[in-house]
Amino acid sequence: MDQAFSPPERAAVYRAIFERRDCRHFLPDPLPDDAIARLLVAAHHAPSVGFMQPWNFLLIRSQAVRLEIRQAFDRANTQAAQLFPEARGELYGRLKLEGILESPLNLCVTCDRSRHGPVVLGRTVQPEMDLYSTVCAVQNLWLAARAEGIGVGWVSIIDPCDLRTILGIPEAVVPIAYLCLGRVADFAPTPELQSLGWLDRIDLRPLVYEDHWGRPPTSFILDATAVFPSANSKTAT
Amino acid sequence: MDQAFSPPERAAVYRAIFERRDCRHFLPDPLPDDAIARLLVAAHHAPSVGFMQPWNFLLIRSQAVRLEIRQAFDRANTQAAQLFPEARGELYGRLKLEGILESPLNLCVTCDRSRHGPVVLGRTVQPEMDLYSTVCAVQNLWLAARAEGIGVGWVSIIDPCDLRTILGIPEAVVPIAYLCLGRVADFAPTPELQSLGWLDRIDLRPLVYEDHWGRPPTSFILDATAVFPSANSKTAT
Repeated sequence: MDQAFSPPERAAVYRAIFERRDCRHFLPDPLPDDAIARLLVAAHHAPSVGFMQPWNFLLIRSQAVRLEIRQAFDRANTQAAQLFPEARGELYGRLKLEGILESPLNLCVTCDRSRHGPVVLGRTVQPEMDLYSTVCAVQNLWLAARAEGIGVGWVSIIDPCDLRTILGIPEAVVPIAYLCLGRVADFAPTPELQSLGWLDRIDLRPLVYEDHWGRPPTSFILDATAVFPSANSKTAT
Repeated sequence: MDQAFSPPERAAVYRAIFERRDCRHFLPDPLPDDAIARLLVAAHHAPSVGFMQPWNFLLIRSQAVRLEIRQAFDRANTQAAQLFPEARGELYGRLKLEGILESPLNLCVTCDRSRHGPVVLGRTVQPEMDLYSTVCAVQNLWLAARAEGIGVGWVSIIDPCDLRTILGIPEAVVPIAYLCLGRVADFAPTPELQSLGWLDRIDLRPLVYEDHWGRPPTSFILDATAVFPSANSKTAT
């Protein structure tokens, strides 16, 4: 029995994957509650180790709270900027790396490491699996948001201790992702860090091995233009 | 400008999210190389911190290598089974938690923490961001696989030290996900751990807060049947 989606359905899934962007430039338009609800339901249907579902979702609408978060970002970003050598530091300073105050919604996705007690199926030799499950929820939300025409940006330049203090997150709970969400003028054809010359997309082929680290695949031809005949700059590897 | 997908495209993205399953029962049919290539390209287009793209993909086809992996699973699983109390332990013993030998392809997705040197944009105060980026790649692949009609199962009951030794993974590289891939007889309407009574899906509503941990949202109605009017058991929260 063929379980594959129809060609147009399959194309839509790949479209979400290829056109998803890490957004930093938001329009002020508010997001409708029903769209936010769909994104959270999508996140909640992520895979989780032992069906643990360790996540919580903190919607941050208060401008006062966001101002504190923005100050935490500023502290971490000032420190970070000093770590890059001269030309990189100059480019780093010009990058827009967050949209905390101007996006209509912020969202902190967390992982409750104590959910369902100390022993969780599938976490016994890989205790970090609950963190990874929560990341899967973030990626579900990110792709669903692209389909909804909603931009998402993950802001990682915030000290997690600051997030914990500002948002009152308990000890057993780990903040995983601080996200900005909102409508955007466009989803750029290439990631901004690529178009601004920070880094290029790596060629996928040398990243693929077979049976042992460093051994190239024997019977496997990986050519993005062959893989996706209609490939344009959005899908080029 | 409306950046949203058309209603059928959007429905396809949600279908992949809701019908994705952690698969443990595989048909022996080989997977075509072009489908495998599409899955890897999808993974490679995941978001990554500072556009780091820290991942590698080890395809494991050798039955000899898989036998070693399976033995590592057996060791970890025997230890794990002892951690569950009596009734749970009995149910645990009946669960099928891997498909290492019978699936046509295994895939280890890894994170090279040294890629692009010690200082990476966005990793300065959250050094674990590269691990999370790699998890996003896994989730992209998992959803693309659903659209292709390919089942994926994440096997986390393997000591990462065993994976490192068997696959020759270098010190700076972390194995993130060990996956089994293949055709499946069906994608079950509910996760197996739910249908077998291990855990239920949690009600999403009490997991959502606003502005501070523990504070329920003020102006936000989250009802999955309202969110997805055609919701069935696949999409119920």
